[in-house]
Amino acid sequence: MKETDLITKLTTDLPTDSSIDVGPGDDCAVINVDGKNVLLKTDAVVEGVHFTADTPPEKIGRKAIARPLSDIAAMGGRPSHAVVTVGLPEDFDETRLKTIYRGAGEMGEQNGTYIVGGEITRNPVLLISVSLIGHVETDRVLTRKGSRDGDAVFVTGELGGSIAGKHLDFDPRLAEARWLAEQFEIHAMIDLSDGLATDLRYLLGDNLGAELLTPAIPISRAAKERARDNPAGKSALLAALTDGEDYELLFTLPSKQAVSLHDDWKTAFPELPLHCIGKITSQPGLHLRDDKGIQPFHAQGYDHLQ
Amino acid sequence: MKETDLITKLTTDLPTDSSIDVGPGDDCAVINVDGKNVLLKTDAVVEGVHFTADTPPEKIGRKAIARPLSDIAAMGGRPSHAVVTVGLPEDFDETRLKTIYRGAGEMGEQNGTYIVGGEITRNPVLLISVSLIGHVETDRVLTRKGSRDGDAVFVTGELGGSIAGKHLDFDPRLAEARWLAEQFEIHAMIDLSDGLATDLRYLLGDNLGAELLTPAIPISRAAKERARDNPAGKSALLAALTDGEDYELLFTLPSKQAVSLHDDWKTAFPELPLHCIGKITSQPGLHLRDDKGIQPFHAQGYDHLQ
Repeated sequence: MKETDLITKLTTDLPTDSSIDVGPGDDCAVINVDGKNVLLKTDAVVEGVHFTADTPPEKIGRKAIARPLSDIAAMGGRPSHAVVTVGLPEDFDETRLKTIYRGAGEMGEQNGTYIVGGEITRNPVLLISVSLIGHVETDRVLTRKGSRDGDAVFVTGELGGSIAGKHLDFDPRLAEARWLAEQFEIHAMIDLSDGLATDLRYLLGDNLGAELLTPAIPISRAAKERARDNPAGKSALLAALTDGEDYELLFTLPSKQAVSLHDDWKTAFPELPLHCIGKITSQPGLHLRDDKGIQPFHAQGYDHLQ
Repeated sequence: MKETDLITKLTTDLPTDSSIDVGPGDDCAVINVDGKNVLLKTDAVVEGVHFTADTPPEKIGRKAIARPLSDIAAMGGRPSHAVVTVGLPEDFDETRLKTIYRGAGEMGEQNGTYIVGGEITRNPVLLISVSLIGHVETDRVLTRKGSRDGDAVFVTGELGGSIAGKHLDFDPRLAEARWLAEQFEIHAMIDLSDGLATDLRYLLGDNLGAELLTPAIPISRAAKERARDNPAGKSALLAALTDGEDYELLFTLPSKQAVSLHDDWKTAFPELPLHCIGKITSQPGLHLRDDKGIQPFHAQGYDHLQ
């Protein structure tokens, strides 16, 4: 069973309440607290899954908090405070743990987020669970739902090959998402954590599809190098479509806004590429179009439980 | 190194911000969001540490959320929403996980708290991390700091022997703590998780002490039975002083309020005993007084890392 299916199964019958604007199944929960939209998100990294024993401790800490920060970004929100639970193996080096914490604290502060509490428990391997609180104005909440037939599909940055290094060293796209929510009519947004092919499907629901222009998909240098070094493995394009942990923004908006978005983006964020990679269609499913024609694409991205 | 010392070491140099009213080191963090006091807490339970493979799954879920609910109680707060991260071993039974979630959802709802998000990651053993958000009125925030020389020391319920069953089946004292914060001048409060002897020290700081009346310490039936069944082990009194996971409220207030508290409590909470167990002293350290005299008490309660 896939992680998302399992989460859906687990959370479907949970007690609910009118204060919950967005519950399980989006990048963050949105709850109404005295008329304010409060964002809530939790996420964990585990040794052997999200990093290794060799990973520099500062990067472990940075990644642990950057992942949920990326989810806050994808809701159009501003993060503010974090609490951290560490699952600590016996005899874990205290200096290493302190460096992990420092990395998390610094990455948090760089994004306006402060660690306000911590717990430590025993665990067979190092695990760092970070929960974040943030907020977002009512007219700027970006969810995964809302794509419309004909929307343009955009993605920031370049995709694939994150395992070569980017997964430990990325910046949550908080400023970019805020700017988008303020300037344009964003219909739906998600941060790319499980791979473009998987995450794009979350923006489609059951009734919509997407047609991607293969040559328009931005392939990272890392994905290209990995494909070159391992000709029997994933092609660079397949890596861009299915590798996890890109931590870029994927979003849809009315196609008539696409040109001005392109122009304004270059002024606002000259160092981060933005690409229109296709459009939302009324035909369900994911299709790839290139100069040879159009064909369905069935491969999925990364799943944590598989 | 003790857990609290390690947390202090890890969090001392973290970046901080004026929005943080209470940071690491209390039962919950208190942050200022648009003039409101928001409470934030995270806590995790791990198989082999907080429960076993034989523990009924519903009780695992109930305990996982009841623990941080108890911390919200100790701040005088009202919890509202929770997010849950599950660390899941491979081949974990899905029905069991669903029952854990149901238990957490029910325990949450019984205490006005709704699960709004979940994540699942791989972990060698089952781990459930729950983060809670809540709020508390400014004039009702109860922290661990504020005890004064001469204060009366009170505790709810009966202590010790929690491992016999109560640690899996307890009610967070939310209503009781709210009532106390509204009706009385509570100087300091904590929920008992690491044992009376350890947790009481958090209410004393460096400059104060406490003198407990040994015959006044409420010893649970479980602690008495365990002492009777194992004469070579902890005495029942020592168990009440040092066993962890009581999840009762320990608090201090002006001694002149002690009598009316006793009277009013019986009307408000007739089924939950409340005991005055001693007083705050200007002499630092913990002392026990009985009919043979007074002596210092050095033993500590439970430490998760030892």
